[in-house]
Amino acid sequence: MQLLEDRIRRDGKVKEGNVLKVDSFLNHQMDVRLFREIGKEFKRRFAGEEINKILTIEASGIGIACVTAEEFDVPVVFAKKTQTKNIAGDVYTTKVESFTHGRVYDIIVSREFLGEGDKVLIIDDFLANGKALEGLAELVKLSGAELVGAGIVIEKGFQIGGDLIRAKGIHLESLAIVESMNDQTGEIVFR
Amino acid sequence: MQLLEDRIRRDGKVKEGNVLKVDSFLNHQMDVRLFREIGKEFKRRFAGEEINKILTIEASGIGIACVTAEEFDVPVVFAKKTQTKNIAGDVYTTKVESFTHGRVYDIIVSREFLGEGDKVLIIDDFLANGKALEGLAELVKLSGAELVGAGIVIEKGFQIGGDLIRAKGIHLESLAIVESMNDQTGEIVFR
Repeated sequence: MQLLEDRIRRDGKVKEGNVLKVDSFLNHQMDVRLFREIGKEFKRRFAGEEINKILTIEASGIGIACVTAEEFDVPVVFAKKTQTKNIAGDVYTTKVESFTHGRVYDIIVSREFLGEGDKVLIIDDFLANGKALEGLAELVKLSGAELVGAGIVIEKGFQIGGDLIRAKGIHLESLAIVESMNDQTGEIVFR
Repeated sequence: MQLLEDRIRRDGKVKEGNVLKVDSFLNHQMDVRLFREIGKEFKRRFAGEEINKILTIEASGIGIACVTAEEFDVPVVFAKKTQTKNIAGDVYTTKVESFTHGRVYDIIVSREFLGEGDKVLIIDDFLANGKALEGLAELVKLSGAELVGAGIVIEKGFQIGGDLIRAKGIHLESLAIVESMNDQTGEIVFR
């Protein structure tokens, strides 16, 4: 998606340790005009697919998911991150390892809002090692719903997540795939 | 807002301890059609006000803030909750006491995204004791930005927050104010 790649090149900041900061427009300050274009692009890429629910994860996926959901005219459900040990039986839950924060957390979705008959599109802002996306896919599986695909705004193509998800046969659409980036020069190369 | 009150009556669940569960359409599963009507209503209530930024707090405020932001054609900034002790100097931070979770947490906003010249509308899903909203107002003050007002989806009118915020002279618009509710009968009375 050209508009997105241009924006990442203009406002993204490459930091040491393969960090791409896009918090001026994507995940701290949020440019909702760009989100609308992102939503339309997801709608185009999953055209013809039957989708009745969008699943995302708190916090930074929620804005993109909501704007995208209007394009599909479906509700959003967001998975909650929790470190609570005793989860009540009325939720689906799985564990996700966060490399960024160096810890394992539980993600949960209420059984009320995901289940058999649901055709689910997962939306998230980033795909790197794929752990969050695997966790969301696991929640869909546990619920008996059908996973139609996953739409990602920025995929770090040099990390394992994309290959891992595609190898599972999941229909993955990433709007910008970063092939490489250089924290010395600030250069970003897209696939 | 009649549409919202009707929806709360229909799908809201009154639980023991003054808990109003609206997670089927507001803060776990999210009805983005309703969000659009909510956004339009905020736009109507703050018509004529100069607003160039919407501030909210993760996680459940983000979806409503993003849809509302499209009505105002402004970006959203969301404050992050953190328990990290050492916050870098490039953020504004204040403490918020959570009664729901029985703990104190820091909320932070990057200095890059809030500052002098900004005219800020705060948007959030709930107002009860007002601690989160006070915290957000404090971040606006720290940044040197101007607080234009606060738009809340559901105010628990029987708790202190609304009075507290209005007493400070903040222009507060709550789309539904719950005057009382009964966890035995499930009855909800609006102001």
